Amino acid sequence: MATADAIRVAILGASGYTGAELLRLLVRHPRVRIVALTADRKAGEGIDTVFPQFIGLGLPRLVTIQEVDWSGVDAVFCALPHGTTQEVIAGLPKHLKIIDLSADFRLRDPGEYARWYGHEHRAPSLQEEAVYGLTELKRTDVAKARLVANPGCYPTSAQLPLVPLIEKGLIDADDIVIDAKSGVSGAGRAAKEASLYAEVAEGTHAYGVASHRHGPEIEQELSASAGRPLVVNFTPHLMPMNRGMLASIYVRLQNGASADDLRAVLLQRYADEPFIQIVPQGVAPQTRHVRGTNACHIGVFADRVKNRAMVFSVIDNLMKGASGQAVQNFNVMYGLPETMALDQLALFP
Amino acid sequence: MATADAIRVAILGASGYTGAELLRLLVRHPRVRIVALTADRKAGEGIDTVFPQFIGLGLPRLVTIQEVDWSGVDAVFCALPHGTTQEVIAGLPKHLKIIDLSADFRLRDPGEYARWYGHEHRAPSLQEEAVYGLTELKRTDVAKARLVANPGCYPTSAQLPLVPLIEKGLIDADDIVIDAKSGVSGAGRAAKEASLYAEVAEGTHAYGVASHRHGPEIEQELSASAGRPLVVNFTPHLMPMNRGMLASIYVRLQNGASADDLRAVLLQRYADEPFIQIVPQGVAPQTRHVRGTNACHIGVFADRVKNRAMVFSVIDNLMKGASGQAVQNFNVMYGLPETMALDQLALFP
Amino acid sequence: MATADAIRVAILGASGYTGAELLRLLVRHPRVRIVALTADRKAGEGIDTVFPQFIGLGLPRLVTIQEVDWSGVDAVFCALPHGTTQEVIAGLPKHLKIIDLSADFRLRDPGEYARWYGHEHRAPSLQEEAVYGLTELKRTDVAKARLVANPGCYPTSAQLPLVPLIEKGLIDADDIVIDAKSGVSGAGRAAKEASLYAEVAEGTHAYGVASHRHGPEIEQELSASAGRPLVVNFTPHLMPMNRGMLASIYVRLQNGASADDLRAVLLQRYADEPFIQIVPQGVAPQTRHVRGTNACHIGVFADRVKNRAMVFSVIDNLMKGASGQAVQNFNVMYGLPETMALDQLALFP
Amino acid sequence: MATADAIRVAILGASGYTGAELLRLLVRHPRVRIVALTADRKAGEGIDTVFPQFIGLGLPRLVTIQEVDWSGVDAVFCALPHGTTQEVIAGLPKHLKIIDLSADFRLRDPGEYARWYGHEHRAPSLQEEAVYGLTELKRTDVAKARLVANPGCYPTSAQLPLVPLIEKGLIDADDIVIDAKSGVSGAGRAAKEASLYAEVAEGTHAYGVASHRHGPEIEQELSASAGRPLVVNFTPHLMPMNRGMLASIYVRLQNGASADDLRAVLLQRYADEPFIQIVPQGVAPQTRHVRGTNACHIGVFADRVKNRAMVFSVIDNLMKGASGQAVQNFNVMYGLPETMALDQLALFP
Repeated sequence: MATADAIRVAILGASGYTGAELLRLLVRHPRVRIVALTADRKAGEGIDTVFPQFIGLGLPRLVTIQEVDWSGVDAVFCALPHGTTQEVIAGLPKHLKIIDLSADFRLRDPGEYARWYGHEHRAPSLQEEAVYGLTELKRTDVAKARLVANPGCYPTSAQLPLVPLIEKGLIDADDIVIDAKSGVSGAGRAAKEASLYAEVAEGTHAYGVASHRHGPEIEQELSASAGRPLVVNFTPHLMPMNRGMLASIYVRLQNGASADDLRAVLLQRYADEPFIQIVPQGVAPQTRHVRGTNACHIGVFADRVKNRAMVFSVIDNLMKGASGQAVQNFNVMYGLPETMALDQLALFP
Repeated sequence: MATADAIRVAILGASGYTGAELLRLLVRHPRVRIVALTADRKAGEGIDTVFPQFIGLGLPRLVTIQEVDWSGVDAVFCALPHGTTQEVIAGLPKHLKIIDLSADFRLRDPGEYARWYGHEHRAPSLQEEAVYGLTELKRTDVAKARLVANPGCYPTSAQLPLVPLIEKGLIDADDIVIDAKSGVSGAGRAAKEASLYAEVAEGTHAYGVASHRHGPEIEQELSASAGRPLVVNFTPHLMPMNRGMLASIYVRLQNGASADDLRAVLLQRYADEPFIQIVPQGVAPQTRHVRGTNACHIGVFADRVKNRAMVFSVIDNLMKGASGQAVQNFNVMYGLPETMALDQLALFP
Repeated sequence: MATADAIRVAILGASGYTGAELLRLLVRHPRVRIVALTADRKAGEGIDTVFPQFIGLGLPRLVTIQEVDWSGVDAVFCALPHGTTQEVIAGLPKHLKIIDLSADFRLRDPGEYARWYGHEHRAPSLQEEAVYGLTELKRTDVAKARLVANPGCYPTSAQLPLVPLIEKGLIDADDIVIDAKSGVSGAGRAAKEASLYAEVAEGTHAYGVASHRHGPEIEQELSASAGRPLVVNFTPHLMPMNRGMLASIYVRLQNGASADDLRAVLLQRYADEPFIQIVPQGVAPQTRHVRGTNACHIGVFADRVKNRAMVFSVIDNLMKGASGQAVQNFNVMYGLPETMALDQLALFP
Repeated sequence: MATADAIRVAILGASGYTGAELLRLLVRHPRVRIVALTADRKAGEGIDTVFPQFIGLGLPRLVTIQEVDWSGVDAVFCALPHGTTQEVIAGLPKHLKIIDLSADFRLRDPGEYARWYGHEHRAPSLQEEAVYGLTELKRTDVAKARLVANPGCYPTSAQLPLVPLIEKGLIDADDIVIDAKSGVSGAGRAAKEASLYAEVAEGTHAYGVASHRHGPEIEQELSASAGRPLVVNFTPHLMPMNRGMLASIYVRLQNGASADDLRAVLLQRYADEPFIQIVPQGVAPQTRHVRGTNACHIGVFADRVKNRAMVFSVIDNLMKGASGQAVQNFNVMYGLPETMALDQLALFP
């Protein structure tokens, strides 16, 4: 996989779940050579000690960020925690193309950032430069970007169905309820009581109610679609499962639209998109059918309540919700076919 | 535990999950003697063959309904499938008190029943006689009833929080979204592809969208609270877990009400109820904290969207959503303390 | 349930899973009044903040061990981590009866203790005083004990079937393989990467191979049964489940014994034991059928290999493997019926 | 992916889990064109109705076996139930290369077959012709075969570590205990009570004790390695997980061998095998690290019992244990690189 013209890639934060997922994809990417893997606390270990599934691949050992020789790197996937990322990226050489999977560069308004993250942004010029990378909706910008802010998982699952509907004026943008359900891998590999098997298995609950940081990200993008500031209900729930995200979206129809009109608009908008599928009428999409893939499946139903409809969208939170979309953006940035290294079919069961 | 004045109980349909749950409760009920267990397809087998957890208890063998000697029975718990139940119950002697866990006697309007179940009701006079047994809301009626229609799991989880709020006029009863999440035991023990481990584990999806039969049951009771016909959004989702039900309810406030007002009304209404807990502000209730119990935990949150709020209620679908509430109703019907045999604490983890 | 003659109980380490399980049992114990709950790091919090399933029970707040007024305490359940327990217990007043759920007092040989735990025992006289509390096998000693070392979960599941077979000389005590499988709650509530949902769900593996500290505990007790030092294979495996423990035990028959003889000996030995069930021939016991109970189910099979047999035993690792047996020992120590507060039936599904 | 010289493939029994897994692999196989998919009970449906993960791929509709035009087919993957397969394959044209995933052609001795399956084999000449396809051990034969009997999942996980050790005489072949653990997808997609989520989740148990049909298959192949008839202990257990198989193998060392010698022999034997990894000393292999891959990870440990050792091997039961090995055999039969379409990395978490 390491051709002469390979793009030399570093993954920062390779010891987390999004890091592992990037590796799973990039090891098999025909144009990529992985030249550096960083993990501050685990520097010095082999990646196959940290993730035994990578045994036998001859990957580089984990190092600290300081140890990376940037002159031998073309592109960086940054899978570091929120908050610390901005300073790390600010310190990187300018020849690097960067796809950042953290939340640090997603909010464009510095005031909004400060309000939700509790401190001033530490790299405001980069924040301005960063392109929000929901590929299907921002492809042209991504193609020209040096720094892509890879979207959050919840915002991806919500925007893909909602943006076309808002743009066409088919739904009341002031009356949107997003009841979202996520697998626990979204919480990362940090050892937290709330992520223990015994705390997650065989039960479910809402969390981050009216306070989850993906809320303002969703609103920023939906507001842009509507051309005016929106506030939406967004309520995340933790599911007893590793992967997968389901956004159950409850909308009020307007301008005489029907659920069929919603479906028609989505079908048309995504007709040529390799990763987006509008599932047949009457089918409720299931997260397990996109497990391990970069796909988004969307279903539309009329409500029994007059003038209301439901839209369901499912993604794999580690793929289209994180590392898969990151590779998709990478492909766009380098002018490669968008599906390169992303043609996995779902692992079901 | 079988005293001289024991109430002699038969369980019809003892080989399903609600049957097993009834047994778990009634075996330890200080006033109950279990005298008959039926299971048509498994008649002749020991209940401890069908459910090995009941080994060593000396319970009666499974028989067919025809084999039961009703003269030695005082009360019947009926855990048979929907549709077949009405004829079975119509054929039972009139001296029996009956708690029916099927849906057959829940809908009061014969037309509504026929519309949702595809056939005329076959025991219309019993349908009229039956008392809808959501205990906390119908205690007086239940106390006098001979035939109790035990509520569905989804309707129980939705009504407990919603009825007081609708009655007090604090929420817009025409703008209610109920995103409900259930463990798979609610689908019963029938061998269906959709209930296989490999089809349920590690994924989630909506089902019965705009067509689930608990919808009209919810609307019947909420309409009674509102004093006029309501239609609500009710969307069930299947969770990869055995037990538990979470109703995430999205409401619009009215008449100047705040989320705090909602909480206050619920606190007051349920102050003396042993099974209902309004959880502290900021806490999202979790299904695992009511696992194996007859409890319902309810939490209230203000939305970031103006004049909107979220109410979360959790129950164990096999307990307060089925067999637990059935025993609670039994206790009420016999003038026993309502918590008798229902004082389990949650099995967590 | 707090009568005048209640036994006043303190639980040390109430914020862990065995602590929660003790609470689940003791709150409903008719002779117990819970007067103190300790949890050093969470001192000051309500137990219902730490474990929301205990909301509404009016339990004491969590305090540090130092804050407990021992003059108002009769009995202590100690659910603290291994290693720190011995010093805590050494510092307690002598009027207290103590059931210790840690491993600190299980090994009788100080040298063996030092070898497996890496330091000299810090309370050697208590170590000598402590009675090993596998109730069915040590009932007489437990009844007289002031300090009971509650057995480990793996040792409990292994000894119950093996001790009678070794004592009767039916199996070759030098050729025993114990392949043991445990739910993850056995690892406790500490936030460790290895216990995360994403690390445990949907997979299995051996751990602590040839190095798990329950190995010497098993060998100590089996050696006592054999009357000579034994070494056995004991290999624990982590299961993707909350609770439950299965010991699959592979033995060589001797002295002309058959699998039927093994079964007969176990049936006879445990005929009067309320918690031990020898399941019918041909039935393989399942952990889910003892979930939430203090039961142990044992099954015996002839092997196709000549002169070999398999014995399977299942327990709930938090119940008979920890807190349930602790309460059982408490009952014995106080001359109460052994099943008091332990008559739960399994929560299945 | 359908080049002019594509190999035209039919999958019989495409609506089961091994069928779906074959599709997942073959859709991305650069030399394969899928021309027919059969599923008798679901004939007429689209494969994306049966398995929504295959939406948008333009695959052929499901048909009955009778409807297939064999003149346009080169190779057949047969994923039909045991027992019915032999007659189906007997009726196929002779130009077809066949990889059979059922058990019908695995046992070479007709008497043994009749004993374990309860009837005479119905295609005895094919039974004689069939090559047992454990690729790493039978590569030369597979390359020349027209009909390959793809091995069972348990036998694959057991033979890969055991055959080299038996051949080298390092272990006592008369004293082998195989405690095997499987995910539930191995039971297939048939709607059986025992495979329901509620029967499988959150618990574990042995099954098919001393009677599982993979027993004679294991013994046939190990006996061939030993050069004399062997009987081994093989005890399967059901795990609460979709995929994955762990064989925990307990052996007695002989001829002065140590655990290190076992490891050395396995390292040497599998040094050039792309799918077999001997994991580092002290590491217990985990099923999740081979999930979705054709890999087998093997670990070796010395026992604390003198002259005994443990060998752990993990595979994905649907991959190396079924469909992955089937594609590997297909590649060998067609002289293609053995890893073609099999270079997936594990989906973890």
